Amino acid sequence: MKLREIVARNLRRLRHAKNLSQEELADRAGINRNYVGMLEREENAATVDMLEKLAEVLEADPIAFFEPSDTPHPQA
Amino acid sequence: MKLREIVARNLRRLRHAKNLSQEELADRAGINRNYVGMLEREENAATVDMLEKLAEVLEADPIAFFEPSDTPHPQA
Repeated sequence: MKLREIVARNLRRLRHAKNLSQEELADRAGINRNYVGMLEREENAATVDMLEKLAEVLEADPIAFFEPSDTPHPQA
Repeated sequence: MKLREIVARNLRRLRHAKNLSQEELADRAGINRNYVGMLEREENAATVDMLEKLAEVLEADPIAFFEPSDTPHPQA
């Protein structure tokens, strides 16, 4: 699995765990509203700075974005 | 510690473990020669795609870039 895909899945999982929409998460992280969707669709490669901001809002360790997932078909 | 700094330290540590110069690592990863130095000096925020390439050359799990370090003053 490509690293972008791993990050996308973990981002979606962590966002759902906080019951946030993509737009809500983006607003709280102070980043562009389209950016979260682009990361979750693997259209963009997240930077370390962006992951740091997202992790802070999601109250997660940035390492959590890189943990391999066992779920083959996560829901969008 | 900022995430950029954690990534910079781990990149340098993993590169030294492989006895590679910044230029050698960049060449093997197929990325710009200046890029590795910029990451290690925290002048640039690495993207997930770049970390994936670097991890492959360094034979490391990408998670290794995000592990907190206990060494306060790593050597350049």
